[in-house]
Amino acid sequence: MKPNKHLDQLFNPRSVALVGASSVFGKWGYNILSRLISSKNNREVYAINDRESEILGLRTFGSVRDVPGPVDVAIVTVPSPDLSAVMRDCVQKGVKTAVVITSGLAECGGDGSRLEGELIGIAERGGVRFVGPNCLGVFDAHSGFSTLGFQPPVRKGNVALVSQSGNSGQSVLNYGYQMGLGFSKFISSGNEADLHFEDYIEYLAQDRRTGLILGYVEGLREGRRFLELAKDITRRKPIVIMKAGRTDVGSRAARSHSAALSGADTVLDAALKQCGVIRAETIEELVEVGVALLGQPLPRGNRVAVLSMGGGMAVTASDALRNEGLELPPLSPATMEKLDSILSNRWSRGNPVDPAGDFVSYHCLWPLIEDESTDAVLVVGGVGMSAGFPGWAPARMKRFVDSMRKTLEDAEIESLEKTLHMMDACRKPVIFTVGVTGAATNGRVAKRLAKARRNLYASPEAGARVLSRLVSYSGYLGSDEV
Amino acid sequence: MKPNKHLDQLFNPRSVALVGASSVFGKWGYNILSRLISSKNNREVYAINDRESEILGLRTFGSVRDVPGPVDVAIVTVPSPDLSAVMRDCVQKGVKTAVVITSGLAECGGDGSRLEGELIGIAERGGVRFVGPNCLGVFDAHSGFSTLGFQPPVRKGNVALVSQSGNSGQSVLNYGYQMGLGFSKFISSGNEADLHFEDYIEYLAQDRRTGLILGYVEGLREGRRFLELAKDITRRKPIVIMKAGRTDVGSRAARSHSAALSGADTVLDAALKQCGVIRAETIEELVEVGVALLGQPLPRGNRVAVLSMGGGMAVTASDALRNEGLELPPLSPATMEKLDSILSNRWSRGNPVDPAGDFVSYHCLWPLIEDESTDAVLVVGGVGMSAGFPGWAPARMKRFVDSMRKTLEDAEIESLEKTLHMMDACRKPVIFTVGVTGAATNGRVAKRLAKARRNLYASPEAGARVLSRLVSYSGYLGSDEV
Repeated sequence: MKPNKHLDQLFNPRSVALVGASSVFGKWGYNILSRLISSKNNREVYAINDRESEILGLRTFGSVRDVPGPVDVAIVTVPSPDLSAVMRDCVQKGVKTAVVITSGLAECGGDGSRLEGELIGIAERGGVRFVGPNCLGVFDAHSGFSTLGFQPPVRKGNVALVSQSGNSGQSVLNYGYQMGLGFSKFISSGNEADLHFEDYIEYLAQDRRTGLILGYVEGLREGRRFLELAKDITRRKPIVIMKAGRTDVGSRAARSHSAALSGADTVLDAALKQCGVIRAETIEELVEVGVALLGQPLPRGNRVAVLSMGGGMAVTASDALRNEGLELPPLSPATMEKLDSILSNRWSRGNPVDPAGDFVSYHCLWPLIEDESTDAVLVVGGVGMSAGFPGWAPARMKRFVDSMRKTLEDAEIESLEKTLHMMDACRKPVIFTVGVTGAATNGRVAKRLAKARRNLYASPEAGARVLSRLVSYSGYLGSDEV
Repeated sequence: MKPNKHLDQLFNPRSVALVGASSVFGKWGYNILSRLISSKNNREVYAINDRESEILGLRTFGSVRDVPGPVDVAIVTVPSPDLSAVMRDCVQKGVKTAVVITSGLAECGGDGSRLEGELIGIAERGGVRFVGPNCLGVFDAHSGFSTLGFQPPVRKGNVALVSQSGNSGQSVLNYGYQMGLGFSKFISSGNEADLHFEDYIEYLAQDRRTGLILGYVEGLREGRRFLELAKDITRRKPIVIMKAGRTDVGSRAARSHSAALSGADTVLDAALKQCGVIRAETIEELVEVGVALLGQPLPRGNRVAVLSMGGGMAVTASDALRNEGLELPPLSPATMEKLDSILSNRWSRGNPVDPAGDFVSYHCLWPLIEDESTDAVLVVGGVGMSAGFPGWAPARMKRFVDSMRKTLEDAEIESLEKTLHMMDACRKPVIFTVGVTGAATNGRVAKRLAKARRNLYASPEAGARVLSRLVSYSGYLGSDEV
């Protein structure tokens, strides 16, 4: 059976057995079983436990061998010393795909490594492919199948996530949810004793539900294969990787966490670039770059126009963009003329645009979007401000102020719609960031932006980072186009 | 009159005149007047406007000269061409201190520079000292005096903020409020035509309400004086500076924003270090370092123990600390023994502490706080988790789960109290960070932490940055102690 067939089964099994099912609330074998039952659809769910006859209303079986029907996928949560016996049962039963949640294997060294080696041997001889060990397993947002005991809320979408750490994976899911990202599949790959990171991305490259691949990586077991796959995939689907274990101590910690050996960071960095893989420094960036790749067209170059709500923001945004190696060229004469007609004569009369006390309006943004001397626009502040209007007003004016805010918000939404149309027409990325640090990113305008997959980023630095990754990826794709 | 006398008046005037008072909602002259009236205490408030006889229920005067009583502070919002005449009136009236909000001066060059020069001459000859122009002015949280038209909510406290940008200043106030920081005074210094950044920090050094100075700087007009002052002040009160305009374009933008000339960034960086000034890269960091300086003891060295909730977090935190130049030494044998007795044999058995699937409890934290082979602890995840318990549970178990969460939270708060006591006793910084990216930082436990000024930071990277600044500052203070 080809790996892809195993993985097809993995993400949408018709029947699944939980080996290590438990009636004790809080245990893996309880949490996972609860979720399997409540999201079973037409899937057969079998609870395997040789000490209890019934768990959560399900009749149990002493072994996976005792299950009457076929078992597409076995999820295993038994203690590590019992793993080999369970895997032998799976082989006998004809189970072809397994998810081994159990930890205490190669990541612990010694006995753990020996047990993991044994497990690999039994599975290989028996034709079983498995995820893990030392992982959370997988979910498929479209089929509804999930082996996760605890799962943050997830939207359906076209982003696949492969994570060598369970908790980092959950961080990506959690922050992704907040940023409006929708997921297709999630794989917590753990120690990757059998199925490797490379197997998953090869599968996801062909998965029609997946348009973007995010990865949290501590070490690549098949570095060369990864790079070859990536070189091919990134032409069609972007891959964004957060590589952890970059430092001496981090790398050592990675070994005792997911048994991953990570090589020299600078070498990897260069190799990733050559294959068009986008690298993120943090979990936040991994998600934020993902959001931008889905919602923004790629820039044609690195020339950025900045529209700020005020001077400090203009300076900070310029620093952030320059630190990312991006350019702030002069604006075209036509744009200058248009801005002159909108803003008071105090404005900065150049790029970055600082209105110097004037209220920034979308009218200032439109000429910047249309200006062909820049490839992208970074907007700092001003957007979504209507939600916070006014900073202060006397209590006796509440009704007046409330209706004024509503009017302003309506006007802003209207302008935003026009802006979104223009962005689509000009095929130019426009990155919106809040101007006031810590300002809410969940008002009506922010929600409209998120719906259009143009999110409101929390700082000019975050916006500049995202833009820089888009520029690099665009440069990579354009560099050897025929 | 000595500058300090002017500044005493500035922060708590008995009488104040707003020159440029307006009855048009939304104008500076309206917004500022509204606030002055509603927070007047026993202050006399005079509205100056020569076209209307009454504004917001106040009788107006045609000029500051017409005010019957004395005027301690004049706030000026008239258009730039009218500034000279207003300043002459102030001189004639005997006003000694002014706040010039008006923009369109040196930051615009040309005519603006000429007008600013004129203003300086009139004030100097007349013995008037002034804040601005091109600024928001000041507030004093203790006296209640504020010249801000729009002001984010502010807590009283001992942090003073001097910002050369009004909107960056408001960002600091806004994020500071979210992070529980309390402020003493705020100065939006604008173009600093007369009173300079240096004058303000000299004053704040002696202000008994101020224990910590935060600054947003685009350029220092008296660099040498600043460094001399800082060298003295940082022995007693920490100074944290975000220097913007670090790059070529950022520096150019700074010139057209606050008319500030910023020098070579690397030179400044070295000079700041030599004077014990802590440098922040972003607005977020400025606030976060401030919070840590107030709530945490200074570390004795750069050796950090990491307690993580899981492997990915351990790796990420190690990378973040190493990138900041901090060490993760081995734990003492006594600590290892204690952790062995608490955690399963799967734990990482070293620093960083990765429980490998076990739930981390405060019992793991206590030996790390007491371990004398480390100078600080970085906690990643696990803290405040009870608020989110459980990730998922069947609806029918809601009541059971709610009561369980309450029990867990109570237990966590109890453990936290013991932890806070221990932190005080050991005089060791313990930085708490969320493990799951985007997780809430406002649960019961997070609130208790914030109350004790030990905040819950949003990422291991943020925690590592803060810790690194504490280590540097501590090193500076210790380096030439007699």
